[in-house]
This record gives sequence, C-alpha cells and structure tokens, in this order.
Amino acid sequence: MYEGAVQELIDELGRLPGVGPKSAQRLAFHILEADPQDMKRLVEAITTVKERVKFCTVCGNVTEQELCNICRDPRRDPSIICVVEESKDVLAVERTRSFRGRYHVLGGAINPIAGVGPEQLRIRELLTRLNDGAIQEIIIATDPNLEGEATATYLARMLKSIGITVTRLASGLPVGGDLEYADEVTLGRAFEGRRNALS
Amino acid sequence: MYEGAVQELIDELGRLPGVGPKSAQRLAFHILEADPQDMKRLVEAITTVKERVKFCTVCGNVTEQELCNICRDPRRDPSIICVVEESKDVLAVERTRSFRGRYHVLGGAINPIAGVGPEQLRIRELLTRLNDGAIQEIIIATDPNLEGEATATYLARMLKSIGITVTRLASGLPVGGDLEYADEVTLGRAFEGRRNALS
Repeated sequence: MYEGAVQELIDELGRLPGVGPKSAQRLAFHILEADPQDMKRLVEAITTVKERVKFCTVCGNVTEQELCNICRDPRRDPSIICVVEESKDVLAVERTRSFRGRYHVLGGAINPIAGVGPEQLRIRELLTRLNDGAIQEIIIATDPNLEGEATATYLARMLKSIGITVTRLASGLPVGGDLEYADEVTLGRAFEGRRNALS
Repeated sequence: MYEGAVQELIDELGRLPGVGPKSAQRLAFHILEADPQDMKRLVEAITTVKERVKFCTVCGNVTEQELCNICRDPRRDPSIICVVEESKDVLAVERTRSFRGRYHVLGGAINPIAGVGPEQLRIRELLTRLNDGAIQEIIIATDPNLEGEATATYLARMLKSIGITVTRLASGLPVGGDLEYADEVTLGRAFEGRRNALS
C-alpha cells in the first residue's frame, strides 16, 4: 500500500472500466510525474464533460445543447431514423458517410441478465417521435450480437403494427476479410442475404 | 469527431500511457454516464496527488511529507540501502518483507536512446547519503533488463572506489517457473549463480 493520496488515486483509477490494478498503478505514477498543466487540463476535461454534456432530448445522443448537432441540422432527412444502442454507434455510422437521416440512441440493448428490459431503453421516446407521421423508415442498427439481435427483433415486431418500413443492417462477410476465417453464422447470413451479382 | 467537450476529454485521456483511441473513447463515455459523485472523487484524487504528493528529500520515494514513511521509520536499518529505479519498485521489495533497510529511488535507469544519462538520475543524492559513513552495504535492485543492467554496472564501478559492499539481486529461475520454458540468458545466470545445495 502506498501512502494516502497515491493509494486513493490508484483505487479511483482502478474503478474505471478496463483498468486493472497494474494499469491503475502505472496511470497513477504517470499522473504523479506528469506536467501539472497537463493534469489540470485532464481534470478540467472531466469536470467540463460532467457539467456541460447532456443527452439530446429528441434522439438521446450526447450534446452540450438541448438538441444534438444532428437533430439541429436541417439538411438531415427527418423521414429516416437509424436506431443505435449507444452514442458511440452514431459516430461509427457517421464515419461511413452513407446515412443522411436522423438517429435514435436507445442507451443500450435488451439484456435480461443485466436487468435491462425494453422499459430501460429509450423506446417510448422513439414511439413519440413516430407520432408526427413524418417518419417513413426505421433502420435498426443494433450490434450484431445476442442482445442487439433481441432488441432488433423486439423493435421490429413492435413497429410492424404501426405500418412503418423497418429495416435491419445486412449481416455478411466483412469487406477485406477472408471467407476461410469467417465464422459459420456470419457465412450462413452471407448466403441468406446473397444479392444479384449484376445489380 | 464528437462535439467539443466529449472530444476534448477523449483527447486528454488518449494522452495517458497505455490508453489508445478506443480505450479513451470507452473511458470518456464511462465518465459521461458515471455517477457525478464518483467522478468528483476521481477528479479530487488527481488534484490531491498533484498538490500534496512530493518526493522524499532523502530517498526520492513518493511521500506527502518532507521524508517518506520508510526514511522516517527509526526501526529501518540505516546501514543498508536498496537502490531501485522507481517508487513502484519500493513497494515490490516491501511486499517481500525480507528487506529492513532503507531505499534510494533513482528515478529511472540509464538509457542513452531516451536521453537519460547518470546526471538525470538521483545518483548525486546517493553519493551524498554515503558521506556520513553510516552506510555499509548498497544492494542494487534495478530491473534485470538492458537499461537496469547498465545502471547497475555504472553504480557498481562508481561505488567500488568508495569501499562499500555493493551487491546485486540474484538472477535465476523464477520460483514456480518451469526450467523448460526459461530463456537461455536466465538459465545461464542460474548456472553461474548456483549455490551449495546443502547450505
């Protein structure tokens, strides 16, 4: 055990996700020896985020204002909503530059073991957005894992009754990948989702 | 890119050692969603460490006072000094409970590529400590790698002329290890350092 303040810092750092005891110690000693100005900037960055960053009241994405910059942007197509699990996923989709609609961040995926049911997600807010009739398509872009698939199925069934086009991101071989190393589920999906080679 | 504050936090976190862009993003979102009280504690821990923690004026170990708790402890044998590279190493030696002397933290190891020569280490402070004649043995416990070995050799040669017993930690097979998997240098050292099996 180190003396008071150092050990306390190691403990606090060790509570962060993906930071084990050894990393916490290394980070603590880095902080200890780092330039005080750099550490002041780090502390301010944490404080600012906690004080200023909120979640967009419409889509749930992170923002420093009432609405996020995508919901504020009049050039974004309001008739298509891409439903994702986390704010991080918004950025991932944005990087593709192939989606010009709006988003809806659920805040997670259905995961009964972790106690996350549909009520814990921002599904009610999604239904509210559908009320004005402007939305024509919902693209479900949850993670292609157990929880994401369960959430997608739940949403698809629920939205079917409303009569809106509901689509799901294609599953298949990753571009640049190797067919030989694809797992059987992915390869199976690639077969199911095969497309006309001439189109 | 995220909006201002979030991206700034990701950038600051990404500057920490061992934190890549993905980890920085994950940490930033954890901080964003975490309990404000927890984050306040983290910020306070960083601030406190930067404000309060100093280096012991005698041995260079981390401390919140003028002298570290080992240098302050009258039960520690003042005639033996264990020379280590970092404060972390003090803790590692302390955990063995087999050393009851004092320490001297060099603050690194000789590494010409990184621009660290003997002048950048706390070697002058070590020589000052030897002046009072109370010290009878110096145990060099630098890391068993290239830089640590170079530092050990440098110190051993320098201290030889002063006429103090200078020892180096034994190299050999790690306890609980497997002879078959030991690298040839370690195994070679284990042969060189072999001891009478009956002693």
